Amino acid sequence: MSALQRRVYNLIRDDDTNDLASNIFDGFIIVLIVVNVAQVVLDTFDLPPWAVAASLYVEYFSIAVFTLEYALRVWCAPCMYPEARPARARVRYVFRFMSIVDLLAILPFYIPFIIPIDLRVLRSLRLLRLFRLFKVNRYTSALSTIGTVLRKKSSQLVSSVFIVALLMLISAVLMYNFENEAQPDVFTNAFDSLWWAVATFTTVGYGDIYPVTPAGRFLGAVIGLLGIGLVAVPTGIISAGFMEQIDEGKAEADDNKKFCPYCGHRLDE
Amino acid sequence: MSALQRRVYNLIRDDDTNDLASNIFDGFIIVLIVVNVAQVVLDTFDLPPWAVAASLYVEYFSIAVFTLEYALRVWCAPCMYPEARPARARVRYVFRFMSIVDLLAILPFYIPFIIPIDLRVLRSLRLLRLFRLFKVNRYTSALSTIGTVLRKKSSQLVSSVFIVALLMLISAVLMYNFENEAQPDVFTNAFDSLWWAVATFTTVGYGDIYPVTPAGRFLGAVIGLLGIGLVAVPTGIISAGFMEQIDEGKAEADDNKKFCPYCGHRLDE
Amino acid sequence: MSALQRRVYNLIRDDDTNDLASNIFDGFIIVLIVVNVAQVVLDTFDLPPWAVAASLYVEYFSIAVFTLEYALRVWCAPCMYPEARPARARVRYVFRFMSIVDLLAILPFYIPFIIPIDLRVLRSLRLLRLFRLFKVNRYTSALSTIGTVLRKKSSQLVSSVFIVALLMLISAVLMYNFENEAQPDVFTNAFDSLWWAVATFTTVGYGDIYPVTPAGRFLGAVIGLLGIGLVAVPTGIISAGFMEQIDEGKAEADDNKKFCPYCGHRLDE
Amino acid sequence: MSALQRRVYNLIRDDDTNDLASNIFDGFIIVLIVVNVAQVVLDTFDLPPWAVAASLYVEYFSIAVFTLEYALRVWCAPCMYPEARPARARVRYVFRFMSIVDLLAILPFYIPFIIPIDLRVLRSLRLLRLFRLFKVNRYTSALSTIGTVLRKKSSQLVSSVFIVALLMLISAVLMYNFENEAQPDVFTNAFDSLWWAVATFTTVGYGDIYPVTPAGRFLGAVIGLLGIGLVAVPTGIISAGFMEQIDEGKAEADDNKKFCPYCGHRLDE
Repeated sequence: MSALQRRVYNLIRDDDTNDLASNIFDGFIIVLIVVNVAQVVLDTFDLPPWAVAASLYVEYFSIAVFTLEYALRVWCAPCMYPEARPARARVRYVFRFMSIVDLLAILPFYIPFIIPIDLRVLRSLRLLRLFRLFKVNRYTSALSTIGTVLRKKSSQLVSSVFIVALLMLISAVLMYNFENEAQPDVFTNAFDSLWWAVATFTTVGYGDIYPVTPAGRFLGAVIGLLGIGLVAVPTGIISAGFMEQIDEGKAEADDNKKFCPYCGHRLDE
Repeated sequence: MSALQRRVYNLIRDDDTNDLASNIFDGFIIVLIVVNVAQVVLDTFDLPPWAVAASLYVEYFSIAVFTLEYALRVWCAPCMYPEARPARARVRYVFRFMSIVDLLAILPFYIPFIIPIDLRVLRSLRLLRLFRLFKVNRYTSALSTIGTVLRKKSSQLVSSVFIVALLMLISAVLMYNFENEAQPDVFTNAFDSLWWAVATFTTVGYGDIYPVTPAGRFLGAVIGLLGIGLVAVPTGIISAGFMEQIDEGKAEADDNKKFCPYCGHRLDE
Repeated sequence: MSALQRRVYNLIRDDDTNDLASNIFDGFIIVLIVVNVAQVVLDTFDLPPWAVAASLYVEYFSIAVFTLEYALRVWCAPCMYPEARPARARVRYVFRFMSIVDLLAILPFYIPFIIPIDLRVLRSLRLLRLFRLFKVNRYTSALSTIGTVLRKKSSQLVSSVFIVALLMLISAVLMYNFENEAQPDVFTNAFDSLWWAVATFTTVGYGDIYPVTPAGRFLGAVIGLLGIGLVAVPTGIISAGFMEQIDEGKAEADDNKKFCPYCGHRLDE
Repeated sequence: MSALQRRVYNLIRDDDTNDLASNIFDGFIIVLIVVNVAQVVLDTFDLPPWAVAASLYVEYFSIAVFTLEYALRVWCAPCMYPEARPARARVRYVFRFMSIVDLLAILPFYIPFIIPIDLRVLRSLRLLRLFRLFKVNRYTSALSTIGTVLRKKSSQLVSSVFIVALLMLISAVLMYNFENEAQPDVFTNAFDSLWWAVATFTTVGYGDIYPVTPAGRFLGAVIGLLGIGLVAVPTGIISAGFMEQIDEGKAEADDNKKFCPYCGHRLDE
């Protein structure tokens, strides 16, 4: 890798160095992300023509910067994985989670130039750049603890989500059969009653759709009470995970505190 | 038991062998379950005549397959409980939880041939076959941990459900007395106010029924706050259960650290 | 205390003896409680005249039985507290929590004979007798664990309820000031907005009252997010309580497993 | 500091001495706070003219007392920080959290005399004085445990709030794009859909705003299920915190069991 590549890499990589140029670059990117978020939010209001134009310029400018940054990062990838060949390093970088997020944030802008379709929804993907803010906040260690706990317990969490999904599907079809006759316009098909099942299991209960027949209400009551379990089981899993995390921290601290009761020798675990 | 019985049993039993025929059979059943679910969901939509006919054929075919499978499983039951006499083994198999679920999934189809009643609701019981998917997912150990915790804590959980049921009943009758005069069409009888109690305790709150009098609102506020406890107590119980599970796992892992490496003494637990 | 007193006490006291007469008595009381509950629930429906009459007879009979039982229990109280003088034993019995509940369940029936007022609401207090069912269910030990945990953590739980009550009051008054002008008919006074605060903190959200102004919605969002804490803090407290309970059980089991690392002596705690 | 200053300080400081004068002063302040709260709540009702007048007198009197108390506290601050110079001690006192709360509770009354604006909303800040009640309740130790747990876990809690805020913002903008066309009057701009996101994440679900399009409902279902995590993660964090707190309490209690009663050796922790 060339010296230029290395210098650019030092500028744009995500670290906590006190290098002035690097900090200015980081600050500039953060400001641009915040401006982009503000612009996406403001675009949902009825803006006067000059503001629409300004919003467009902000978008052009941000996309240009983010595209350039993305290109530079790909170009500098070999500095990140010095042990790999440059081409492989770049491929590896492109398929990292955060790189895909970065790409999703700029790609929707270019698609209409190639295929002329309206991608307004996709363009709000720019909000994904918000995740970049994580690396600059001072709570990285807390976040990584949360991440570790969720990852460790992922199979239990996925299992409970799987059970909930089955229960939702079954109760949605049952509810459709109970309520369709009484409220044909509300419980029109299984998707409507699936929407009801989600609103009930999560205890959101907007009130746009609810059972009125005795059988439907009985099922609704059972589902509502099971919905409590939907909160209780993952909460229990996650609580235990956090406790385990704390215990492991302590176990490490305790490592040299064990003694054999017969000979009094320290038991190096 | 005959050699044929044994061969069929090896084909249909729920295991993780790499036997090709057995895997193909498992895959076929899973596909059929998913097709059945899709069909039950699609049946709730207004379908064109050809789709209604196709849906019917899918149902006939699935019921035939599931009936055959059920019969074969019962026939092969002696391979499952080799120590019991064949007849007893079959009875034992038929009364297993999963066998009852399997039977409930096919029975509703046959009842109308005997007694001519409409069993559309019962026919959605076919969705129960979804539970069969559990054995093929790779989260079996996570699921069994969740199951173990819930089973261990079942008496505490049932107790808290019992208290909640009492509180619901009492608050429903009180609420009826408070609100019936002000909203005779909403709080018509104790069942309506029981529906209110469920919606409030579970914090779903659809908004189809709620108190308007000062006394009713006061009771509603108390019930709503107690509803928080409805979440907190089982969550606490379940959290403690998961922690206990983890501790037990560790205790087992510690079992082979029970000798002092210096004097060789067994460290009595 | 007389022999008759003692014999009656053995009959009516809450225990698990296999004495046939005592079990029949217990069963009779439980059936009567269930019949009473059914009657209170059915009274909320429009009943034909014969059912109203039957309901009245059920009530007369139950009140007669429960009054007699209450009188007998008070009379037998000296068998319960043999160390106290009979009069003191009776007073002590009358002021036990369960005795007050029993009295509240029968008193409302007699009041109208003295003061001619309508006490329909109070008469549903008969439902309080449901709590008697606790002693006959087989989950007594689970219930007492839950009770122990809640009692141990009561000061922390009361503190968190106190904070929540303060936050509710403050947010209710603020919300009134924000919303009264925009929705004078909905946020009429501080009680209305207190009702809103309860519905939001408990996440019930019936939808009968909610903010529409930007300031009100901002406050509502903050309150809703804090409402999450309303669940999280007591849940955390209760979880820790259940864990502590389990640990104490284990600590007792571990009591004779401690050794000095220097001399190898068992450390009798 | 003068003797008068010291005597006044002993009178007004927040402590548990049994000094009669000090207790009377504390009681007087508490009564005044409760009267103030009652007055703020009653002011939201339509009062007859005499009550409006009385309410005004109560306000004048309270503000006078609280202003005097605030002035005295500032004057006595040097007794609180005897090591600092009087001026610094006063500045330090004024910028304590509770002092700012006290000031916010009286300031809004005086502002209209200087700048003639309506500060009715700000005047309900008097409710902040309610926080003064904390120091007189007997649950101080329970409260401080809760406070300690929340403080210890603050970085994890803030991190989870940060993630939730990001998810809310992203889902609000997406939902706006999905629903704006179908319900232009409900999802008018990003603020409306942010309000929806809050109601859904917190599972309040008032029912004033909800998705109707398939895409919107799908997003709504995902958000609702993630909202469960919004409860589960902080609950897990807080549960672990309370457990840790209990463990630490035990570790301290074990501190004097650190000597072997047989050989007298110190048992190194």
